[in-house]
Amino acid sequence: MIKKSKKINAAILVIGNEILSGRTRDQNVSYLASYLNDNLGIELKEVRIVPDVESKIIKSVLALSKSYNYVLTTGGIGPTHDDITSKSISKAFKKKYTYHKEAYIILKKYYGEKDFNDPRKKMSKMPEGAKLVFNPSSAAPGFVIKNVICLPGVPSILKSMSGNLKKYLKPGIKTFSLTISVETIESNIAKELEKIQKYYKQYVEIGSYPFFRLGKIGISIVIRSSKKNRLQSCHKAIIKMVSKKKIKIFRGT
Amino acid sequence: MIKKSKKINAAILVIGNEILSGRTRDQNVSYLASYLNDNLGIELKEVRIVPDVESKIIKSVLALSKSYNYVLTTGGIGPTHDDITSKSISKAFKKKYTYHKEAYIILKKYYGEKDFNDPRKKMSKMPEGAKLVFNPSSAAPGFVIKNVICLPGVPSILKSMSGNLKKYLKPGIKTFSLTISVETIESNIAKELEKIQKYYKQYVEIGSYPFFRLGKIGISIVIRSSKKNRLQSCHKAIIKMVSKKKIKIFRGT
Repeated sequence: MIKKSKKINAAILVIGNEILSGRTRDQNVSYLASYLNDNLGIELKEVRIVPDVESKIIKSVLALSKSYNYVLTTGGIGPTHDDITSKSISKAFKKKYTYHKEAYIILKKYYGEKDFNDPRKKMSKMPEGAKLVFNPSSAAPGFVIKNVICLPGVPSILKSMSGNLKKYLKPGIKTFSLTISVETIESNIAKELEKIQKYYKQYVEIGSYPFFRLGKIGISIVIRSSKKNRLQSCHKAIIKMVSKKKIKIFRGT
Repeated sequence: MIKKSKKINAAILVIGNEILSGRTRDQNVSYLASYLNDNLGIELKEVRIVPDVESKIIKSVLALSKSYNYVLTTGGIGPTHDDITSKSISKAFKKKYTYHKEAYIILKKYYGEKDFNDPRKKMSKMPEGAKLVFNPSSAAPGFVIKNVICLPGVPSILKSMSGNLKKYLKPGIKTFSLTISVETIESNIAKELEKIQKYYKQYVEIGSYPFFRLGKIGISIVIRSSKKNRLQSCHKAIIKMVSKKKIKIFRGT
């Protein structure tokens, strides 16, 4: 599945009407983005948020699964009628949507035989051949099929599962980053930054983000690279440029 | 552009490496989702987050522009080298990427002739024929081309522009919603909820969202409909089902 190159990338597919209606603010994308980038050196390249609609889920998961090394989905694996992720992913990959033996046993044990009703049983239905991502906080497991990993939408549960997620993700090259925050506005240093970006084009990615903090206007210049020496040399070049222009470094936090 | 039907929908395209790296948590999607749904009756149907890469922006904006009534983009319209939204959107629609006369005048006046340098001038470059979305907080306008509306990424600036955005958006039918929070777990009422959902299939959308609040476990049942009477009748049905099962309504906030 994974290309031989050391750059490994991923996409996230958020499944849930509640995010699109504005009722719930998504918390999983930024958590998973940091987790993938910082811990595993896996670059997050795209995110899509779609409603609880089978055709939309199928179309998106197939497109993303083809384009990226991994796809992480969040949401829609609970017991209610609007939880249709497992069924949709089964259809997408033309797999039978069926009870996963081990998941069934885990859930039966968790709820007790007497209380193991149909909606609870449903949480052990997944695409045939799926592998489990264990859930230490509320039992119902996530699963992996092909290069797609399906996780729950509740942030605290998702977070509790990240340790068990690791074994399905091959780490890539780590990206290092440095931030230089300066007390100026973007258009004052845009030309100079562009020049530096051109020089380091192959190795360092430079981003520029305005902020308003502690009553000051400023920009955070974020530089990212998998090569530590190039990153440091680019950092020096920016510090030199900034001090030449007599721009103050922002010391607030 | 807009179909004759009264259901109007939209997609959001978030453009920015800083969201995908996990450095910045997006705040615009939930703001715009509520703004579109609650104020204008425009249903948000899909969100994509892509990096500052021309080919990705072009591909996504064309796909979304074809599928939805409106596309709102956020990010990438500032003065620095990594702000490539305007240029990419021009390419996507095969429009000339050129100075917008009025935007040029606005920015020149704002910065003063002496300080109106190239990066600042760049903020008035957009697809030929674009209309402006005025920016009361930092002058640099957003723009509209075809059914695509390009807005900045800084949340406070984006919010300040929402009043000026309205005139480009034809309102749809308003969706009403009600929430019933109950002290139980999903699998206890999943069957009953599914039955109610089936009965109201055509008119009401029922979502179920677990929560942990004030030391209590519960679910928020959210029902949404454009028909007030159907919504109220569905609300009654849920309350009846819940009280029949002796489940407590959650009164915390």
